[in-house]
Amino acid sequence: MEKIRVVQYGCGKMSKYILRYLHEHGAQIVGAIDVNPAIVGQDVGDFAGLGLKTGVVISNNADKVLDECDADVAIVTLFSFIGDIYEHVEKCAARGINVITTCEEAIYPWTTSAAQINRLDALAKENGCTITGSGMQDIFWINMVALVAGGCNRIAKIKGAYSYNVDEYGPALANAHGCGLTPEEFEKKIAHPQMFEPSYAWNASEAICSKLGLTIRSIAQKHVPYVIDHDIFSSTLNATIPAGRCIGMSAVVTIETLQGISIEEETIGKVYGPGDGDLCDWKISGEPETEFHVVKPATVEHTCATIVNRLPSLLRAPAGYVTADQLEPNQYLAYPMELYL
Amino acid sequence: MEKIRVVQYGCGKMSKYILRYLHEHGAQIVGAIDVNPAIVGQDVGDFAGLGLKTGVVISNNADKVLDECDADVAIVTLFSFIGDIYEHVEKCAARGINVITTCEEAIYPWTTSAAQINRLDALAKENGCTITGSGMQDIFWINMVALVAGGCNRIAKIKGAYSYNVDEYGPALANAHGCGLTPEEFEKKIAHPQMFEPSYAWNASEAICSKLGLTIRSIAQKHVPYVIDHDIFSSTLNATIPAGRCIGMSAVVTIETLQGISIEEETIGKVYGPGDGDLCDWKISGEPETEFHVVKPATVEHTCATIVNRLPSLLRAPAGYVTADQLEPNQYLAYPMELYL
Repeated sequence: MEKIRVVQYGCGKMSKYILRYLHEHGAQIVGAIDVNPAIVGQDVGDFAGLGLKTGVVISNNADKVLDECDADVAIVTLFSFIGDIYEHVEKCAARGINVITTCEEAIYPWTTSAAQINRLDALAKENGCTITGSGMQDIFWINMVALVAGGCNRIAKIKGAYSYNVDEYGPALANAHGCGLTPEEFEKKIAHPQMFEPSYAWNASEAICSKLGLTIRSIAQKHVPYVIDHDIFSSTLNATIPAGRCIGMSAVVTIETLQGISIEEETIGKVYGPGDGDLCDWKISGEPETEFHVVKPATVEHTCATIVNRLPSLLRAPAGYVTADQLEPNQYLAYPMELYL
Repeated sequence: MEKIRVVQYGCGKMSKYILRYLHEHGAQIVGAIDVNPAIVGQDVGDFAGLGLKTGVVISNNADKVLDECDADVAIVTLFSFIGDIYEHVEKCAARGINVITTCEEAIYPWTTSAAQINRLDALAKENGCTITGSGMQDIFWINMVALVAGGCNRIAKIKGAYSYNVDEYGPALANAHGCGLTPEEFEKKIAHPQMFEPSYAWNASEAICSKLGLTIRSIAQKHVPYVIDHDIFSSTLNATIPAGRCIGMSAVVTIETLQGISIEEETIGKVYGPGDGDLCDWKISGEPETEFHVVKPATVEHTCATIVNRLPSLLRAPAGYVTADQLEPNQYLAYPMELYL
């Protein structure tokens, strides 16, 4: 069987993991795209520390890369919103190249970017390829929750909380999360944004509803400051945030459904203290009461492993925009990935 | 669409939950079988507290019940080993009735009861029906573990621990678990049984290997006494077990595979103290390290809900003996179950 041919579209922090995982699972890396002048021209093997030259060089000319190889799939790791990845995904789908992306909105974008996703869906069907979003949410915020729901007789509410460390994503994100503000300043500057952006929890919660076949009656998001009672040092701000100030925020998404099941998901971005780790806590109220925790999940590694393990089920899927809740379950690749096709 | 027609085969503790869950999810109960004279002749609605008469009466004549209805599926909740349920399952499969059973060995019996399962598999194929085992293991010890494995890049070892309260299962089981023995007595009487019986963990571990496509190189089981350092009262023994004595045991199953992945599962049966609850803890070593806990799972309710939610995927499955790791993922039934066919 032929190896699966992959273009890495976006060569940032995540792509180093993805490229190595691809290599370890027998994919053929056939192209790499990024505009960062510091890495353009570098061999992907050197860039990702594979220990060998692949002969594939990072290029800033996406069209040329996509035209000059016969890729099965492009892994798009660029931005968090559909508006920002649209033209990049379009380039791939127009050429019949399947797309999987870490873009958080892409996990379930049917309502938050309806027009764009419908266009991409039509384009993918025209060209016989599939587009999907995946990453941490795919397993840990959606399909695992739905699987556990399959062990319940009756569900009244599903409640999830997950977190990330603001210190890992630079000062712009820290400021956008209100780090260092007083609660009053947070209320004024952050709590009620003029331009609404769905949080990761918004799209992930919609995906759970899709998976369980629920009809959304209302959906709302609020931004809640995260305040602590002792000083904490933020490495990304290079400053100590004093007790009583915000160290980040939660976006809380609440869904009511026509079927009477509610969903509440909280995504917490804050400056971690010593001993803190990512959260992934779930509680299903109903019969029986059900609670599970993933203990300090390695969000980056899980995201990248999930993306790579997704490739066979993506390539087996029907054409169009197919969200992760509708794909076959993700599978651990114990053998070279082409054997799973 | 027609309702799914179910025979409840075995009317003990579990069946009360199962019958109610069936009723709540729109199944048609068409028969009920048990030999217990205390309940034979009772309406299933009264037996399970459904709040109405079903017109279906518990009968001790299995053949008559199976002959006189057109059941889609029999739910067999009788015993823990294949040898004990064999003839009951055979009665159903010979009539083309699908079977799902809580029998623990049935979750993956291909090696522990090879000859019997091969005969049942052939019989089911002859008669166009499917046989499977399900219950707590289906989701929480097998498919959830495999799904999380799908978020990992490399797995070295999978380690699971789950527990149950010996006090809930009567004095025979408590004695078989060595409750009240000194560690020396345990070593003599329990640690090295003359007749080997696979623990729940044996079959569940084999199912994980099947799900991940691994080839077992060696499998072993040992019995380890569970000793505590303070007195504890056992309600089923109606006696206090003094500090230093056994309050139960673990069966630890260890698998090595040709692919280099090891599996270790520990099933702990012990007298619970105040605050104790069922365990369901999993750890995957590799990249990344992954750990998750189901917090004090309601094992009985999850078992019964999983069985009932399994009916649509069972009825959609190909004929033969199909283990839970090979069925489609279990799904929460938000609507009457026949809509999932």
